Amino acid sequence: MSPTLMNQLDDAFTNALRLAIVSALFPVEGMDFTMLKKITGGTDGNLSIQARKLEEVDYIQVEKDFVDRKPKTTYRLTDKGREAFRQYVSLLEEAIRDKDKAF
Amino acid sequence: MSPTLMNQLDDAFTNALRLAIVSALFPVEGMDFTMLKKITGGTDGNLSIQARKLEEVDYIQVEKDFVDRKPKTTYRLTDKGREAFRQYVSLLEEAIRDKDKAF
Repeated sequence: MSPTLMNQLDDAFTNALRLAIVSALFPVEGMDFTMLKKITGGTDGNLSIQARKLEEVDYIQVEKDFVDRKPKTTYRLTDKGREAFRQYVSLLEEAIRDKDKAF
Repeated sequence: MSPTLMNQLDDAFTNALRLAIVSALFPVEGMDFTMLKKITGGTDGNLSIQARKLEEVDYIQVEKDFVDRKPKTTYRLTDKGREAFRQYVSLLEEAIRDKDKAF
């Protein structure tokens, strides 16, 4: 039995903010909370919640340290998260590319 | 002020089933309810609900007619829906392609 499309779509990316977080982190080494908030458009609360969900599946890493005695939180995409996002985009690209092939 | 990533991500595609519906319809002319259900993995109830939402934004068209006196519902992606999906995938591809360019 072939998997359904719903099963193939990674749950991590079917939330707008989680998808925005991963898209924002993909091209960079790391990003702090303030910048991530600005780029994604999330609020303090929902950004923390959705980032936590991505952390739980090991798609992102969160580092907390101090810079000039101020707490600083840096978010990075893990290799696993990077690969998962690539697969997600590939799956959608397939639908567009293979116009003659139904799923 | 540049739009945030959240604003750029089309709400229509940030639900797994709606995304599955559009991915399934993209490569084909049209598809009936039974096949769409099988391919996406949706249930009767949630497939109808999410298809309705896509219909409300004119991304899909739903045709009801009779074949051998049996009701048949056919789903088709509209040009608008097709273009919106292309843009959605392009936005995600940008994140992967432009590794040196942060958003």
